[in-house]
Amino acid sequence: MSSDQVSVSSNHNGVEKTNEEVDEDIVTPWNVSTTSVKGVDYDKLIVKFGCKKLDQALVDRIENLTGKPVHPMLRRGLFFAHRDLEYILDRFEKKQPFFLYTGRGPSSGALHLGHLIPFMFTKYLQEIFDVPLIVQMTDDEKFLWKDLTSEQSKKMAHENIKDIIAVGFDPEKTFIFCNTEYMCPAFYQTVLKVWKVVTNNQARSIFGFSGEDSIGKAAFPAIQAAPCFSSSFPQIFNGRRDIPCLIPCAIDQDPYFRMSRDAAPRLNFPKPTLIFSSFLPALQGAQTKMAASDQNTCIYIDDSPKNIKNKINKYAFSGGQATVEEHRKLGGNCDVDISYQFLKYFMDDDDKLEEIRKKYSSGEMLTGELKKEAIEVIQKVVADLQERRKLVTDETVNTFTSVHKLQYNY
Amino acid sequence: MSSDQVSVSSNHNGVEKTNEEVDEDIVTPWNVSTTSVKGVDYDKLIVKFGCKKLDQALVDRIENLTGKPVHPMLRRGLFFAHRDLEYILDRFEKKQPFFLYTGRGPSSGALHLGHLIPFMFTKYLQEIFDVPLIVQMTDDEKFLWKDLTSEQSKKMAHENIKDIIAVGFDPEKTFIFCNTEYMCPAFYQTVLKVWKVVTNNQARSIFGFSGEDSIGKAAFPAIQAAPCFSSSFPQIFNGRRDIPCLIPCAIDQDPYFRMSRDAAPRLNFPKPTLIFSSFLPALQGAQTKMAASDQNTCIYIDDSPKNIKNKINKYAFSGGQATVEEHRKLGGNCDVDISYQFLKYFMDDDDKLEEIRKKYSSGEMLTGELKKEAIEVIQKVVADLQERRKLVTDETVNTFTSVHKLQYNY
Repeated sequence: MSSDQVSVSSNHNGVEKTNEEVDEDIVTPWNVSTTSVKGVDYDKLIVKFGCKKLDQALVDRIENLTGKPVHPMLRRGLFFAHRDLEYILDRFEKKQPFFLYTGRGPSSGALHLGHLIPFMFTKYLQEIFDVPLIVQMTDDEKFLWKDLTSEQSKKMAHENIKDIIAVGFDPEKTFIFCNTEYMCPAFYQTVLKVWKVVTNNQARSIFGFSGEDSIGKAAFPAIQAAPCFSSSFPQIFNGRRDIPCLIPCAIDQDPYFRMSRDAAPRLNFPKPTLIFSSFLPALQGAQTKMAASDQNTCIYIDDSPKNIKNKINKYAFSGGQATVEEHRKLGGNCDVDISYQFLKYFMDDDDKLEEIRKKYSSGEMLTGELKKEAIEVIQKVVADLQERRKLVTDETVNTFTSVHKLQYNY
Repeated sequence: MSSDQVSVSSNHNGVEKTNEEVDEDIVTPWNVSTTSVKGVDYDKLIVKFGCKKLDQALVDRIENLTGKPVHPMLRRGLFFAHRDLEYILDRFEKKQPFFLYTGRGPSSGALHLGHLIPFMFTKYLQEIFDVPLIVQMTDDEKFLWKDLTSEQSKKMAHENIKDIIAVGFDPEKTFIFCNTEYMCPAFYQTVLKVWKVVTNNQARSIFGFSGEDSIGKAAFPAIQAAPCFSSSFPQIFNGRRDIPCLIPCAIDQDPYFRMSRDAAPRLNFPKPTLIFSSFLPALQGAQTKMAASDQNTCIYIDDSPKNIKNKINKYAFSGGQATVEEHRKLGGNCDVDISYQFLKYFMDDDDKLEEIRKKYSSGEMLTGELKKEAIEVIQKVVADLQERRKLVTDETVNTFTSVHKLQYNY
């Protein structure tokens, strides 16, 4: 799953280029950056990656099928692209089983809001579809990529799991595992099958590995691919190998799942379906996403209300004008304003959001006032998470991470 | 562990060269061949691989330390090279623990005599040293390299295990496992550590993998390396990570363990010690080793006495002269005579072997007489294995392959 990155583009070998030297957006599992203040050009990315735009017809179909209003992140286009989503909706319509799979590459300290986007959305998907959820913690990936011991990466994963649980998942419907703790014959068999059908050249072209990279990096993508296939979890899926999954994730993870989808038919497994989010921008602007490696770009779920207020007031890139007079005259630019972007992700009320957009664009609302709205909404999101986080003990973690039957029958 | 091969050299991608086109012996885990009728030049191989000749002083030391006559294969130079054997002998002398590790890449049908060499010798080592033995069955390797399902390779491994057990191992001192059945967090942690410290370039230079090879092939060597380290077996070694191993194997396996030895100090693990055998020649001559892929090159442990007789009479390459008259005059050549080579491996009686050598070399013994001696010895070796093999049931296999405490305390 995605690693953290910096605001200059750099491949995973640390060869850095400044944004001025690159001519297009960089989106890989190890790096996201763009020269545009509006952020990544997602329409271009859809063409480049070969996935599909998640259009209004599909959003409407989800609403019709489930009879529930769709998630704000879906109706506002923040989950914006997909692969084969129709297939999973068809299955839902026919009451055929599927499951959700998402994951995370552990980071030190608390998760930040960017990390939480896929989990908050996954929780919504689980509620509307009522299907099992598998969450993979890639502590092995972190160990392979970073200067860490395996004990350190496992410990980070366990702390991250507590934050993930705080999103509100139900242990009877959710299995969360660290790769280094779950590794077992069934999982390894799936990994072997993926390994067998992907060549070194293909891995190099998908992920950009070089000769100086460790063999572990080349071996790892199959380990992120394995949970796409129900064969990896015989206890949960009663030995069935034919149950497909839907993966909500940020679009930088697509390379792993493009590889998984190429491999699937050769393994007689169903292809995983994907639904992709855009990136929650860093406070400093949409040229990059929140990155745990730079504390001031992020709002963490253990930030105090005061911290949140200070960070947004001090760092949140503004789409406003240089002076109040100019702002009143010209209006602000919501497309680049980070406070407004945060509201798009986290404010439930569509009418209020539209009112803010209009007022800020017209200059009626000043930057300070917009920031105040964002601060209140983010403080509330974080406070709710903190409340639930307090209740998560090591014992709670055990109920999610021990291999257990979920409440579904296959 | 070693795959089977053919008498023309071919790399593991199937790019073949005839022996005429290659200028030196080929010895890799996937291929052994030479243009010399005397077989591989082992002295050259020692220099090329950078291991050490197992000299008489070391053989004497083993005899002195253990107070038992050394195995015929050792005193006849068939186990001819090593890496750091002194280190393990020092530990034995100081009563410090170590263990034996060997393994096998499953093949279909019964094992042949060439497969049995390391196991027969390992049994001797276990008897003189009284240490635990770990046997790895690389059914995953077979799956990755061959056009087989994982079920087929696992089934082959289980049949092979029965043949190995027939060598006479004690389940209280021996753990045999298939990789796809044992794979567990402790083992995976060791694999990850090896993966992290070996680059793709290194793997390519050690094993010759190409871009068209699967990523599984690049990932696999770390899986063969993992049992070198006691951390992979916490139940057996009580969580200790500092117990070194001695690996008896044919010299074609050296690349795996050169890699393991390079990795060890970076992982804070002791380096594995190696003791290498030469190759049991094919019936047709010492240009290659017995290869299960060509039935007529091999004597299998399920061959009948009549079969053994026919194969040796029909196929065993002779060092004798064209006519009886010439043979009486010039004598036979034991260095290239396969019946004599078999006696070197399998005849216990040194005096009798020397007598045969003299008589055959002088022309006093004819080829038919030498073959008769070889037939009798091989028939006896195989009959003994068959007797023990009859007693091996699926239940017996379970006692060896279920994760169990061995009788040693750490």
